[in-house]
Amino acid sequence: MPRLSEFQRIEKLFAPLAAKALGALGLSDDAALLEPAEGQELVITVDTVVGGVHFFDTDPPELIAKKALRVNLSDLAAKGAAPLGYFLALSLPSSLDDDWLARFASGLNEDQDRFGLSLLGGDTTATPGPLTISITALGTVAKGMMLRRSGARAGDVVFVSGTVGDAAAGLHVLKGEGAALPAPAREHLIERYRLPEPRLALGRKLLGLAFAALDVSDGLIADLGHMAKASKVRIAVDASRIPLSPECLQLWGRDSAAIVQAATQGDDYELAFAAPGSSRVAVAAAASMAQVSVREIGRVEAGEGVVLLDDAGIEIAVGDGGYRHF
Amino acid sequence: MPRLSEFQRIEKLFAPLAAKALGALGLSDDAALLEPAEGQELVITVDTVVGGVHFFDTDPPELIAKKALRVNLSDLAAKGAAPLGYFLALSLPSSLDDDWLARFASGLNEDQDRFGLSLLGGDTTATPGPLTISITALGTVAKGMMLRRSGARAGDVVFVSGTVGDAAAGLHVLKGEGAALPAPAREHLIERYRLPEPRLALGRKLLGLAFAALDVSDGLIADLGHMAKASKVRIAVDASRIPLSPECLQLWGRDSAAIVQAATQGDDYELAFAAPGSSRVAVAAAASMAQVSVREIGRVEAGEGVVLLDDAGIEIAVGDGGYRHF
Repeated sequence: MPRLSEFQRIEKLFAPLAAKALGALGLSDDAALLEPAEGQELVITVDTVVGGVHFFDTDPPELIAKKALRVNLSDLAAKGAAPLGYFLALSLPSSLDDDWLARFASGLNEDQDRFGLSLLGGDTTATPGPLTISITALGTVAKGMMLRRSGARAGDVVFVSGTVGDAAAGLHVLKGEGAALPAPAREHLIERYRLPEPRLALGRKLLGLAFAALDVSDGLIADLGHMAKASKVRIAVDASRIPLSPECLQLWGRDSAAIVQAATQGDDYELAFAAPGSSRVAVAAAASMAQVSVREIGRVEAGEGVVLLDDAGIEIAVGDGGYRHF
Repeated sequence: MPRLSEFQRIEKLFAPLAAKALGALGLSDDAALLEPAEGQELVITVDTVVGGVHFFDTDPPELIAKKALRVNLSDLAAKGAAPLGYFLALSLPSSLDDDWLARFASGLNEDQDRFGLSLLGGDTTATPGPLTISITALGTVAKGMMLRRSGARAGDVVFVSGTVGDAAAGLHVLKGEGAALPAPAREHLIERYRLPEPRLALGRKLLGLAFAALDVSDGLIADLGHMAKASKVRIAVDASRIPLSPECLQLWGRDSAAIVQAATQGDDYELAFAAPGSSRVAVAAAASMAQVSVREIGRVEAGEGVVLLDDAGIEIAVGDGGYRHF
């Protein structure tokens, strides 16, 4: 492809991604224009991914694009919001050419179709540093219904979707661990690291059922710690109930060290949420309709902090799970 | 200051910036919640600044913060929007410590008070590259009233606020040009480079008066080219009417080369707009109320593109003014 000017890049690669959104004004103005429908509120979230930190520079550009978008969609999922659109701020090293950018745009396009949202605007700038992608994603939710971190109450039960630890395990595999694993298991874990699956359908079905939710990005234990803090409660998690995938079990086994590893390393992008015990059946039905597994892993108690317990109810020590977002 | 954890950074440095915005949820959730008031639309814009590209790493952190915010506020100004809030995506090199970050936050705080908006959310991440600040700013405008780039019509007159070329001249001074200038002149130009003044009051007063507007970030000629393209018109600018500051005149003089330099190098963050000739008196009154000078510099004609004309009506050649935003 001959080298495109900045203007041509926008017109050829990005404007088609905004074609369906009237408020994007064809990406030809300084700003986009939005008005949520009657009775709806806007849910807005920002996440940045950086080359060499959140992905490898050699990852396929389509996958980098999808991961950058999906980490934001996962935040919308955790709030029970339906995706509406996003703003893209790209800081591009000069080493990335138009072919790379065309593949990046096609990854965005595929995920736009898959998750039902549009590019609304953005900005590209040159950088002497690594590729940096900052996305601001917007969703809508019926007024007053957004799932918050602060809604957990003593007596609630705590659930998590899917399996945790796969993304961290995939990163370990990429770094050379697990060479003895069958190729499909290695590939599954790597895929889980490269391409999170935002649990949008589940999040929307939890509206009115769960009263606290978040997505697991910093690690299950750290993120439940954030929920405990915001809700002013204590959360107790039973280590034996934490769902690990067969592939993760093959890599790490299921002893305490493996569970701590899976529950503290982050990048899972599963939903963790608290709901009254009386909602168990409804939660199971929601999970079934959303076609994702959901496991009860613990309970909310009076107090503060988060604890991981073994089968005898003895606390298992966990390291500092880290904290990235604000 | 002892080194803060990520969580403490948020709590001590950033949460106070979000204290007045209910929808920011104390920066303790995955997302912010927004609902524009009845009859209002949201205007949303994104701009990124990168160390070594848009500012010098050695610039005072307060000024870096303000510039990052103001380039976005300038976009809101150009649309006639009133600022509401912003999302901050920070990619931080490890060399920047908490003292630096505290000064950065205090710069944001000062400008929040000055321009009447709040932090609504954000994200920090480590980067092996330069400091990268991506801000998504939100404003509101009465429904259907947003100033667009596409509203210029043949017969309109073209105006620009303030003076153009100062920021570019300031950058030249920072690089060693103009050593013979008096210190106050040099400082004025450097200040104009480091700290743009978003023309928010003027923008709001242009609602219903001007029918096309944008902020001059890529250079006056390039940006009027964007307006011409979006409006499907030709814009003719009289070189002799382009307003240059006394300090810029001291540095560059007022020959054609100086005017081309001032009108093509960007970073001015002045407003350029087109309005019917019948609005001249009202535009002057709006400028006076907004306490900013506004100069008529040209006219809109049938055709396409933008031309810079000398006093004899002969076209002055200008280089490619560049194009950054989309």
